[in-house]
Amino acid sequence: MTIETTVDTNVFERRESEARSYCRSFPTAFTSARNATLTDEDGRDYIDFLAGCSTLNYGHNDPDMKAALIDFISRDGVAHGLDMFTDAKAEFLESFERLILMPRGMDHKVMFTGPTGTNAVEAAMKLARKVTGRDTIVAFTNGFHGMTLGALSATGNSGKRGGAGTSLSGVARMPFEGAFGPDADTLEQIGLMLNNPSSGLDAPAAFIVETVQGEGGLNAASREWMRGIARLAKECGALLIVDDIQAGVGRTGSFFSFDEFGIKPDMITLAKSLSGMGLPFAALLLKPELDIWKPAEHNGTFRGNNHAFVTAKVALEKFWADGEFVKQIGEKSRMLGQRLDMMRQKYLPGATVKGRGMMQGLDVGSGDLAGEICAECFKNGLIIETSGAHDEVVKVLAPLTIPMAQFREGLDILEAAIAASTTSLREAAE
Amino acid sequence: MTIETTVDTNVFERRESEARSYCRSFPTAFTSARNATLTDEDGRDYIDFLAGCSTLNYGHNDPDMKAALIDFISRDGVAHGLDMFTDAKAEFLESFERLILMPRGMDHKVMFTGPTGTNAVEAAMKLARKVTGRDTIVAFTNGFHGMTLGALSATGNSGKRGGAGTSLSGVARMPFEGAFGPDADTLEQIGLMLNNPSSGLDAPAAFIVETVQGEGGLNAASREWMRGIARLAKECGALLIVDDIQAGVGRTGSFFSFDEFGIKPDMITLAKSLSGMGLPFAALLLKPELDIWKPAEHNGTFRGNNHAFVTAKVALEKFWADGEFVKQIGEKSRMLGQRLDMMRQKYLPGATVKGRGMMQGLDVGSGDLAGEICAECFKNGLIIETSGAHDEVVKVLAPLTIPMAQFREGLDILEAAIAASTTSLREAAE
Amino acid sequence: MTIETTVDTNVFERRESEARSYCRSFPTAFTSARNATLTDEDGRDYIDFLAGCSTLNYGHNDPDMKAALIDFISRDGVAHGLDMFTDAKAEFLESFERLILMPRGMDHKVMFTGPTGTNAVEAAMKLARKVTGRDTIVAFTNGFHGMTLGALSATGNSGKRGGAGTSLSGVARMPFEGAFGPDADTLEQIGLMLNNPSSGLDAPAAFIVETVQGEGGLNAASREWMRGIARLAKECGALLIVDDIQAGVGRTGSFFSFDEFGIKPDMITLAKSLSGMGLPFAALLLKPELDIWKPAEHNGTFRGNNHAFVTAKVALEKFWADGEFVKQIGEKSRMLGQRLDMMRQKYLPGATVKGRGMMQGLDVGSGDLAGEICAECFKNGLIIETSGAHDEVVKVLAPLTIPMAQFREGLDILEAAIAASTTSLREAAE
Amino acid sequence: MTIETTVDTNVFERRESEARSYCRSFPTAFTSARNATLTDEDGRDYIDFLAGCSTLNYGHNDPDMKAALIDFISRDGVAHGLDMFTDAKAEFLESFERLILMPRGMDHKVMFTGPTGTNAVEAAMKLARKVTGRDTIVAFTNGFHGMTLGALSATGNSGKRGGAGTSLSGVARMPFEGAFGPDADTLEQIGLMLNNPSSGLDAPAAFIVETVQGEGGLNAASREWMRGIARLAKECGALLIVDDIQAGVGRTGSFFSFDEFGIKPDMITLAKSLSGMGLPFAALLLKPELDIWKPAEHNGTFRGNNHAFVTAKVALEKFWADGEFVKQIGEKSRMLGQRLDMMRQKYLPGATVKGRGMMQGLDVGSGDLAGEICAECFKNGLIIETSGAHDEVVKVLAPLTIPMAQFREGLDILEAAIAASTTSLREAAE
Repeated sequence: MTIETTVDTNVFERRESEARSYCRSFPTAFTSARNATLTDEDGRDYIDFLAGCSTLNYGHNDPDMKAALIDFISRDGVAHGLDMFTDAKAEFLESFERLILMPRGMDHKVMFTGPTGTNAVEAAMKLARKVTGRDTIVAFTNGFHGMTLGALSATGNSGKRGGAGTSLSGVARMPFEGAFGPDADTLEQIGLMLNNPSSGLDAPAAFIVETVQGEGGLNAASREWMRGIARLAKECGALLIVDDIQAGVGRTGSFFSFDEFGIKPDMITLAKSLSGMGLPFAALLLKPELDIWKPAEHNGTFRGNNHAFVTAKVALEKFWADGEFVKQIGEKSRMLGQRLDMMRQKYLPGATVKGRGMMQGLDVGSGDLAGEICAECFKNGLIIETSGAHDEVVKVLAPLTIPMAQFREGLDILEAAIAASTTSLREAAE
Repeated sequence: MTIETTVDTNVFERRESEARSYCRSFPTAFTSARNATLTDEDGRDYIDFLAGCSTLNYGHNDPDMKAALIDFISRDGVAHGLDMFTDAKAEFLESFERLILMPRGMDHKVMFTGPTGTNAVEAAMKLARKVTGRDTIVAFTNGFHGMTLGALSATGNSGKRGGAGTSLSGVARMPFEGAFGPDADTLEQIGLMLNNPSSGLDAPAAFIVETVQGEGGLNAASREWMRGIARLAKECGALLIVDDIQAGVGRTGSFFSFDEFGIKPDMITLAKSLSGMGLPFAALLLKPELDIWKPAEHNGTFRGNNHAFVTAKVALEKFWADGEFVKQIGEKSRMLGQRLDMMRQKYLPGATVKGRGMMQGLDVGSGDLAGEICAECFKNGLIIETSGAHDEVVKVLAPLTIPMAQFREGLDILEAAIAASTTSLREAAE
Repeated sequence: MTIETTVDTNVFERRESEARSYCRSFPTAFTSARNATLTDEDGRDYIDFLAGCSTLNYGHNDPDMKAALIDFISRDGVAHGLDMFTDAKAEFLESFERLILMPRGMDHKVMFTGPTGTNAVEAAMKLARKVTGRDTIVAFTNGFHGMTLGALSATGNSGKRGGAGTSLSGVARMPFEGAFGPDADTLEQIGLMLNNPSSGLDAPAAFIVETVQGEGGLNAASREWMRGIARLAKECGALLIVDDIQAGVGRTGSFFSFDEFGIKPDMITLAKSLSGMGLPFAALLLKPELDIWKPAEHNGTFRGNNHAFVTAKVALEKFWADGEFVKQIGEKSRMLGQRLDMMRQKYLPGATVKGRGMMQGLDVGSGDLAGEICAECFKNGLIIETSGAHDEVVKVLAPLTIPMAQFREGLDILEAAIAASTTSLREAAE
Repeated sequence: MTIETTVDTNVFERRESEARSYCRSFPTAFTSARNATLTDEDGRDYIDFLAGCSTLNYGHNDPDMKAALIDFISRDGVAHGLDMFTDAKAEFLESFERLILMPRGMDHKVMFTGPTGTNAVEAAMKLARKVTGRDTIVAFTNGFHGMTLGALSATGNSGKRGGAGTSLSGVARMPFEGAFGPDADTLEQIGLMLNNPSSGLDAPAAFIVETVQGEGGLNAASREWMRGIARLAKECGALLIVDDIQAGVGRTGSFFSFDEFGIKPDMITLAKSLSGMGLPFAALLLKPELDIWKPAEHNGTFRGNNHAFVTAKVALEKFWADGEFVKQIGEKSRMLGQRLDMMRQKYLPGATVKGRGMMQGLDVGSGDLAGEICAECFKNGLIIETSGAHDEVVKVLAPLTIPMAQFREGLDILEAAIAASTTSLREAAE
């Protein structure tokens, strides 16, 4: 196997399903990656502002994770053991308990669902229904929770929902903060629905909510709103599930996206950056009193991905043993916010800076414009994508570990692309 | 990290959800594994007749897969790239096309769903509904297809289904071959249901069927029955989905479990042993005319697990380039069948040998007895599990690569356990 | 209002929905009716072998019912009082208790659902789910239970089901007696499904079954089979609902169609002939221990149709106070069976006499032939319809009160139509 | 049968299901009724401000309807003829076309569904899904549409919904006008949901809406809001179904409750007062281009209730041939509104007058108080009920034909009851 060989991309045309997507925006074959840099078969480097949609918060191929994983493989560590006890699982759990749960006073238990976010969401929805004996899950406008049938019913995107080909039931949809404009108090409205016995909203089993809606357009809930949702859930006997799959693991500035909110969700879903190195890994955190699962009542072949346990443990020990990483994320987040705001002022006064922490972007008001900006970026060596209901938000999801200089370089490319796209717009208008 | 340290198994009690299961049958912590041998923290070796429920058809830690994976990691290969093009994906697809699809004249396309079997099943069910505009999927008694809501609705097991906490709809259940006893012609009955416009069975979008029901008790469909199902599906305009997640990738003697049946399923789900080394990886094969997916209409963060592409390619090149592996599986399968039949004759004349190929077992008529046999095996260094609606089948799922001598050794342990358990039964009865 | 005026049937074309149906088979406008005779606007008389699909078991416009109703209207009896107490309701209940329930030792309570059969079925399905906490209702191939969404989900007919435009869930379909041919033991098969925890059949809330499937083709369950269903239901903790809407109220020879079967259904739905005079009226009988309804938890504006109470009371007092009516039905039933069998032997040796009591017909093997026979009958002054999945059964549903001579006259017309239709068939074949 | 006999009300306790409800509020047995007066077995008269929940808009036992019905029965008119053509049906259709549809330029066709409101709603929901190929029906907070499974899913009341015992799917709930307070623009919010492709609101098949929510608390939509809903429906390709079962047939001042709104609903459901005399009768009006029903695709045994056709025709000819009736309703409506407002000012300044036309009431802020007022009324010879999510609205639904003097007398009783109840409240507070 010689990696120098040109990659046969025709095989994708011939044999990969039309469901493929990102490869359409970034039509080249990548052969290596390190931290925030992706390199294609022709040796061209790209700055990665997509980061696997927040799966690569620690960048590509962190050297310590690589070393630990190679060591584990070399010594014939148990790669796959269903959910049997292994040293790797024990060590991950021990680190997670010591570095994440205990400092926060969280007594949650960890459920290793199948290694995908959607599977963790399915487990959470099942458990909420089982615990409460209720059917309805409240989900929010613009929420994204996954593509299997249960999670999809909670997902807002009509394109994704339309793929189901069958009724998506058991979910009631409520407005996220700001969904009805700045003046509408969505908390009050949800409260009115819950407290009106003829509202048609059945008493819910749970609320499932993202603190920052990554796919939905970087809508960031305020501390007050999230606390309100937690209160409403409690008042009506529903559980609070925070889906922290995209916003968690440091993306907004702390391990959990709600660390500063003073709430204790009943369940938390984690996936994406949990393994640290981009390996499939998901988990559901649940309060111990909810742990009424019978053995294997929810299971899955790959629920014990030991390679991921190994790298996840390294990630925890390396980045979360002290406050240094949080400080660095904070600095980068501030810089990011300032740069985006400057771009806005300079080129797109009608645009909005959205999001929180290292999960910010620019709502440019049009999917076409956002797409043009991203395409221009790619030409200039930057990988960046859109989000939002109309793909109208240019979304910066750089690795949290990106060196400051490279981060600035990427933002320069972005600014130039915005400048070019808006100039061409203005010229077209004239 | 020193692996000699005793594993802190208390952390599992403290922090792992009660949903955990296999670790209850095999209460020790495993630290390494090679081919058919698992080793625990005390250095004790176990023969693995579970093989990750058929995820480890090539055994643990195949040296060639290890080498290729370590090489890939070392050279900073792209571990995670969403569904972007990578050299690893291209090379897997090229090998899969050349070694698996082309020799069989299959023009199927490959969809990389999320890396779990249940996700591939969900994608297949979605696509069947989308293509046909119909809602109902026909699934079979004792079928097992996964735990997310869509796949769960097709799964028969009441314990798993009960976990859903909501209605599981969109599936009509039909009897698998033999489900109504040897005399009932279930094909004829299904035909009567399909052709009676007042039967209450709506015209189905698809049939989803395993050729050997792994979790359901090693019920093996005959060639004739599978051809009948294919014919019924065609006649009523439904698609045929073969769920080959457990029975595929060599387990029954050839790559696909239906290779000898002369059928061309419209869709085939693969997972478990597809990566070769136990890494999360799943795929849906679909006929090209069905590939009406819009980009990202079904997606998932981990649909491009490049580590798995690397090992899967090695597996294909090493084991499926010629007929040698098939020949070896055949020899082991025959030996397995003979040994199980001898055990039956000697100790349990009322028992039945079930299954096909390297997916055979002994229906001992009682979950208690089967459980006792497996527990006795574990004491003597053999990992083996039950399956079936009442856990009444002792199921042998050894790696296909297990050395003959070790295979015999494992079967000796099994035979001794059966002897001991049935002796104690007889003594108790006297 | 002068009834002699020619009826403006153009108004139906202009303004009545295409959903209309029987008027297509019998394209004339009827202006009066008495017992088994319908008279059209041109003064032509028709013998009525349809009897409102068993709604007119006592014939049209029974003089005693008429008199009582006119008296009630004349004295300003309460026509509509929601579910308030009225003298008419009390008197109906008292007669029903004394003449129907007490002689059979039935302690059932009477629930006045909305005045349609489908509403009684909906109430029964709701209550079964509420009482058992289970979701699934077992219904049978070729069953017909109504057209509102709940009842429709239990109905087998694909044309009716297809009208729903949404998923019909919560019902598992099992084979009725004989559905898989004479040799298949459907009771055993249903038992196997219920007792196999991996069959995919969730523990049911109830079985809903007709003893004779009127719309489904006059399939008559045997005493043994119905007792078997009752036993299976009991064993699995499900309720037994007998839908006696078409087969009850004397149609099969006794008040309930299951009177001779030695079973005590948990719930019984009644409608059609319950009012005696064809007025909208339905009821659900339920064992008192099941009567956990909260006030108005199921309600409906017309649940107290007092006109129907009045005529229903007359019907009970006139026909069910002694055994005379049962005797007469028995005689007519025997005659009907003999005549049908003679027709079969003479003209259609491949046909089958189906049904029970005054609910018998001839399965002529083809919907086209059956339709031709019915059309021929109509030309000759007999109103008769088909039933069955393929409309292949010519169904005799004469009023139970039809005079013997007129009954014979109608059967003569039927026989002549069969003779004509089969002759033309034979000639066409030659 | 002597009606002087005391009614055996024990039989209700013994034999009528606990689902009974109004009889609990009005625990006496009624034996006759005329226009707005109900008389019980002891000869006591009650003024009827309930009017069968708007089923008796023309009062009890209108003499012309009585006469026509008695004539029809006497001459052996066809009481029950499934959906065959009869003179009675033709005459009803002709009158309805001439007096109702043509003056409004409505080309709607008439579908005779089963004779209950819920059945008409089920037919409308089915047809909307069938026509559009979409699943979701938008229904509104506090809406009430019926109790069969399809209609129930559109009904808001949690007590009613809870009776289903299964998932109620296929309906998305939106806020009715005012549901989120006077300042929230619910039209704008619904528009935001419809136009946001990630809102999670699937493109709807239809909106189903009452112009005045009778059960929901007399919430009256404004002309502007209803026009907005009609516009939103059109924009998103959804049908507009106005459920005029309670508010139609003159209740709000004109035949249809939306006559003054300048909208042309695609479908309109009618029931309750349609027959004129309280007999079961319902119909669905549908635009001719929607009439894609196949024959009998939706059917029902009692869809041709000829007694109801007879009285309904009389009602149309007597009350809707000129503008007199509308004028009288207008006068009574104004008087009603003034009296309610005076009661409010005098006794309950915090209360609100709600509703429209002869469908108005007083929201007294508490179900307990409203119940107390109604109980006090009953003691003094007035039958009146509450509505609203908390039963907090005292609802005046007098026959539209009530003589002015009797109307005033009834309102006097109501005022006295309010005075008494609020006095006792004040005294209790002091």
